[in-house]
Amino acid sequence: MTEPAPAAGASSTGDAPPPVDENGVPLTKNALKKLQKDKEKAEKKAAAAAKELAIRQQKAAADAADVSKEDYGELPLIGSKDFKPTNTPRVDLSNIADFEDKEVTFRCWVENARVQSAKLAFLNLRQGLNTVQAVVAASEKLSKQMVKFSGSVSTESTIVVTGEIKRVKEQIKSASIKDFEVHIKRLFVEVKADSPMPLQVEDAERPLPSDGVGDEEEPQQTEAGARPLVSLNVRLNNRTLDLRAKINHSIFVIKSGVCALFQEFLSQKGFTLIHTPKILGAASEGGANVFELKYFDRPAYLAQSPQFYKQMLIASRFQKVMEIGPVFRAENSNTARHLTEFTGLDLEMEFQENYHEVMGVLEDLMLFIFKELKARYKKETDLVRSAYHVDEFKLPESGKVPRIPFTEGIKMLREAGEELGDYDDLSTPQEKHLGRLVLEKYGSDFYTLDQFPLAIRPAYTFPSPADPLLSNSYDMFMRGQEICSGAQRIHDAALLTKMMIAHDPPIDPMGAGTKDYVESFKYGCPPHGGGGFGLERIVQFWLGLPNIRMCSLFPRDPNRVVP
Amino acid sequence: MTEPAPAAGASSTGDAPPPVDENGVPLTKNALKKLQKDKEKAEKKAAAAAKELAIRQQKAAADAADVSKEDYGELPLIGSKDFKPTNTPRVDLSNIADFEDKEVTFRCWVENARVQSAKLAFLNLRQGLNTVQAVVAASEKLSKQMVKFSGSVSTESTIVVTGEIKRVKEQIKSASIKDFEVHIKRLFVEVKADSPMPLQVEDAERPLPSDGVGDEEEPQQTEAGARPLVSLNVRLNNRTLDLRAKINHSIFVIKSGVCALFQEFLSQKGFTLIHTPKILGAASEGGANVFELKYFDRPAYLAQSPQFYKQMLIASRFQKVMEIGPVFRAENSNTARHLTEFTGLDLEMEFQENYHEVMGVLEDLMLFIFKELKARYKKETDLVRSAYHVDEFKLPESGKVPRIPFTEGIKMLREAGEELGDYDDLSTPQEKHLGRLVLEKYGSDFYTLDQFPLAIRPAYTFPSPADPLLSNSYDMFMRGQEICSGAQRIHDAALLTKMMIAHDPPIDPMGAGTKDYVESFKYGCPPHGGGGFGLERIVQFWLGLPNIRMCSLFPRDPNRVVP
Repeated sequence: MTEPAPAAGASSTGDAPPPVDENGVPLTKNALKKLQKDKEKAEKKAAAAAKELAIRQQKAAADAADVSKEDYGELPLIGSKDFKPTNTPRVDLSNIADFEDKEVTFRCWVENARVQSAKLAFLNLRQGLNTVQAVVAASEKLSKQMVKFSGSVSTESTIVVTGEIKRVKEQIKSASIKDFEVHIKRLFVEVKADSPMPLQVEDAERPLPSDGVGDEEEPQQTEAGARPLVSLNVRLNNRTLDLRAKINHSIFVIKSGVCALFQEFLSQKGFTLIHTPKILGAASEGGANVFELKYFDRPAYLAQSPQFYKQMLIASRFQKVMEIGPVFRAENSNTARHLTEFTGLDLEMEFQENYHEVMGVLEDLMLFIFKELKARYKKETDLVRSAYHVDEFKLPESGKVPRIPFTEGIKMLREAGEELGDYDDLSTPQEKHLGRLVLEKYGSDFYTLDQFPLAIRPAYTFPSPADPLLSNSYDMFMRGQEICSGAQRIHDAALLTKMMIAHDPPIDPMGAGTKDYVESFKYGCPPHGGGGFGLERIVQFWLGLPNIRMCSLFPRDPNRVVP
Repeated sequence: MTEPAPAAGASSTGDAPPPVDENGVPLTKNALKKLQKDKEKAEKKAAAAAKELAIRQQKAAADAADVSKEDYGELPLIGSKDFKPTNTPRVDLSNIADFEDKEVTFRCWVENARVQSAKLAFLNLRQGLNTVQAVVAASEKLSKQMVKFSGSVSTESTIVVTGEIKRVKEQIKSASIKDFEVHIKRLFVEVKADSPMPLQVEDAERPLPSDGVGDEEEPQQTEAGARPLVSLNVRLNNRTLDLRAKINHSIFVIKSGVCALFQEFLSQKGFTLIHTPKILGAASEGGANVFELKYFDRPAYLAQSPQFYKQMLIASRFQKVMEIGPVFRAENSNTARHLTEFTGLDLEMEFQENYHEVMGVLEDLMLFIFKELKARYKKETDLVRSAYHVDEFKLPESGKVPRIPFTEGIKMLREAGEELGDYDDLSTPQEKHLGRLVLEKYGSDFYTLDQFPLAIRPAYTFPSPADPLLSNSYDMFMRGQEICSGAQRIHDAALLTKMMIAHDPPIDPMGAGTKDYVESFKYGCPPHGGGGFGLERIVQFWLGLPNIRMCSLFPRDPNRVVP
C-alpha cells in the first residue's frame, strides 16, 4: 500500500508571504499563475514517478516471488543455434504407460487451454493421433503466474512440456489417452498460433454434411445447440488447417499404408517398380480428355495412364512391373468419385498360359491389402468409422473372391428388375445395384466382373476366344464401385493394328502417339495382362467416405487447382 | 520316289485309225487340233494331280517318320482359351542347380539359335538376367526336322522349352549359367520375333561411346573388327529394344531398389508417404523454368518440386513425410545430368532443437541405401560395372559422413588453386574438384556441404544464426556431384514474408502461388527441415554412368519427348 493522499482542504499556500522572483520583486498575477501551474506539473510528475517506482518494485517483488520464472514462457524463434539444444529426450505419447510416475519431456500442440482458478489450469494436448489431459496446479514450486500463462496459451500453438505422467482414478472422456494425465512442471511455447483461425480444427473433426459436400450459405444444422457442419469447400479452402484433424491424419496414414502394402506384396512376387514419363510428345489413348502443355516450342500432353509404357516394358522383357504415380484426366466430371489428378496403382505382368493368372495376382493383392489394413491400420480405420458410420468391409469367408462373368452380372440385374442388353455398359447406379446383389449372394464387398463386351473396352484389349463380342477383360469393385480396370492386352503387332483400325473411333496405328507402342510388339513380346487401380478410390470405399476429395491431400477437380 | 515318265519318242497316236466324231464322220483338221489340245490339257491336269498327290504322300510319309512332330512348332497366338492351359509348372533359371538331371519346362527368349549340323543345333536362351546354353540333338526320339526348326528360330522370339538340366564338364563362356546346359526335348515358339530389328540387343549390351553420347553419322570404332558402338540417340529411339539388354535391366532393378530402400528406411522412422499435386493453379517457386498447361479454361502449371506442399503438411502436423514422384523442370539444359522430368525422392520432417537432426536422418538414410545396394543388388551392380569400369563407391571407414562447412569447402578449393569468393556458388567443375579433394582427405565419395550462402538459396531458407550471409542449408554429393539439396525452412509467417520481399528477385508473399503457403505458417507450425534427392542421379553416380538418360526408362530432355 502507498501513503494516503493529503486531505483536500489543506492548502499549501495558506498563510505564506506573497511570492517574489529571484530579485525579491513580488510576482505579477500572471507569473503567479504560471508558477502555480509549474508547481502542479512537478507534483504530478513526482507522483507519476512514485507510482511507476511502486509498480516496478511490486513487479520485482512479484518476480522474485515467481518460483517458476525459469519454467515457462515463449521461446525465441528456433533458429538452430541461438536456441541452445538441450538434447533432452522427447517422448512419444503412444508409449505413455511406460512412463507412469516418471518425468518426461515432449513436444505437442494445444487443442485448448483454460484457467480453472488462480491456482489451476487444464490443457488438452495433442501429439499425432494421441490427445492427453494436462494439469498445471499452483504449489510451492509452481507459481500462480505460470498457471495463468499456461491456461492462456492460444489454441494450436506448438509447445514443449515437461511433466510427470500420473494414472487417473476416473477415465478421462475428453482425450484419447484415458488412464493417464500429465502434471506439468515446465511449459514453453515454441511457436505461437495466431487467432482467430479461418477454420477450427475441432470442426474439421466432424463429418461432412450428409450429401458429402454441404452448402456454405446455409450450413447444415445437426442438432439444437451444436455447431453447424462445415461445408467441403470451406474445408478444402483451408486445407492445411483441415488436415490437422485426427480423422484426416488417419485417412492419409491409411493411404500411405495401401501404397506400402501394394509394393510389399508385389515386390515379394518379383515386380520391379518403374517410373514412366508423365509428359508425352503425343496424346496416346485416343486423345480425348488429355491436358495439353507447352513443351519449349511444341505442344505436349500429360499422361492419362502409364498403360502404353508399362506394356512396352513387358515387351522389353521386364516380366512384372508396378508403378505408383499421378494420372491426369481432363474430364469435366464434377462427381463424388472423380478427380482430374489422382494416384494410379498400376501393374502389368507376362502370363504363361491364361490371363486368369493375372486376375489371380490382382485378387490376392487386394485380399492381402484388406487383411493388413484390418491388422495394421485398425486404429486409424476405427477412428474414421467413428465419424462416418459405415458397415464393416465384408470379405467372403471362403477366401475366394467372387469372379462373375459379365453376362451373369447382366442376368442378376435383369432378374432384379433392371432393363439392359447383353452387351450394354453398366451405369453407375446399376454398378451399385449389382454390388448389393453380389453382397447378398456371395457375402463379399469385393468382387470381379470378367469378360466385358469388347466394344466398351480400349482397342488393345484381347478379344475373347469364347465370343467375339466379348473380351479378356475385367473390372474390380468395392462396395459396388469400380476401383480397377484390367485385361489381357494384345501382344501381337498385326492383330493390334487390325483392332485399332476397326475400333470405334478408329485409332491410327502409325500415329505419333501409337507407332512406338505398336512396333514394340513386333519382336517377340510375351502374352501379358495387368490392371490399374485408383488409390483414392480404394481408400474411399474401404472407409465408406462420401467424397473422393477427402482422400486427396490437395484435390484437383475441374473447379479446383488451389491450394 | 514316283514312277519314271514315259520316253519322249513313244507317241500314243502312232498307227491308230484316223479319228472320227460320235457319228463316225472323220474329223476336220481344226476339230482334230482342238481335240489334241483338249487331250494335252487333260494329260497336264492328270500329271499335276499326280504330282500333288505324290507331294502329299511324301509329306505324310515324312510326318509319319517325324517322331518329334508333337514336340515342336509355332503355337497359335495365346488368347487364353483356344490355347488350352497345361498348368505345367514353369521354372526360374536362377535356381537351375536345384534341377540337375531333372526335366523342367520354362519360358525364355532366344538370344541366338544356330544349326551346327543336320543332327545338332545350339541356342542361347535368356530369362531375366540369366542366360543358358541349350542343345537340340537328333536321336531316335528327336527328329532332324526338330533340330532344323530349333536352330532356325528367329532371335528375340519368345519360346517355351522342356528339357533336362545337365551339368557340363567345361564351363560355358557364352552364358551367365556356366555349369549347366539344357538338353531340349520340346520347343514351341510362343511369339515369333520379326527380323531385321532396328537395334540389336547385343549392341545395347555394350557401353556407350566414351563421351556418353556418340555420333550417329560416324559411329565410334573401338577395335579392329568389332562392331562400332551405337550412339545414345539410336538406342533411345529404339528404347524398347535397348531396354532388353541385361545392363539396362540391371540399372532399373537398382533404381527400383533405391526407391524401396528409401521407403523402407523412412517408414521405420515413422514417415508417411504422401502424394502432392503436380498440377498447380499458379507457378509457385518464382515462376521460372515451369511448364504451363491448359486446365479447362484457365492456365495451370506443372510442379517443379513438392516443396511448398510437403512443408504445408508439416504445418498440418504430419510430423514426417516422404514423397516419390515426378518433378518437372522447363530448363533448357542439354547436359549429361539434367532431365526435364525426373523422379524426386523428397522428405520433410519437424525437428526438436536443431536442423542437424534432419541432416543426421538424411545421412543415415543414404548410408543405409549404399550398404543395402551393396548387399542386395550386388549382381546388378557388378553387371553394370563390368561394362562401365568405374571405381567402387567409397564410404568412410568410420561410418561418419564428412559434414563440411561451405566456408571450409571454399578454403580447400582455394588451397588447391581455384579462385573464388567466400559467398560464391560453386560451378559444376569446382564441385567435382571438391569431390576429389574430399575423397583424398576423408576417403569418402559421399559427403555433405553445410551452411551455404543465404543469397544463393531459396527465400524460404532459414538464415544462419552464425552469420547473416549464410543459411541453415546443405547439399549432398556423390562422386563430387550434387544429389540432394535441403535446409531448415522458415516456419514463421512474418519472417518468411520479410525474407520473400527481401529476396532477389523479390517474391510476392500474397501472390496466387504463395499466399496459402505463407499463411500455413501462422498457426503454430513446428520448426522443420528436409531435402530432395534426384533418384536418377543417385543411380547414375552409384554406378558411375556417363549420362543420366541411361537412368530414365523413357528420358525427357528439351529435344526428346518420344518414345
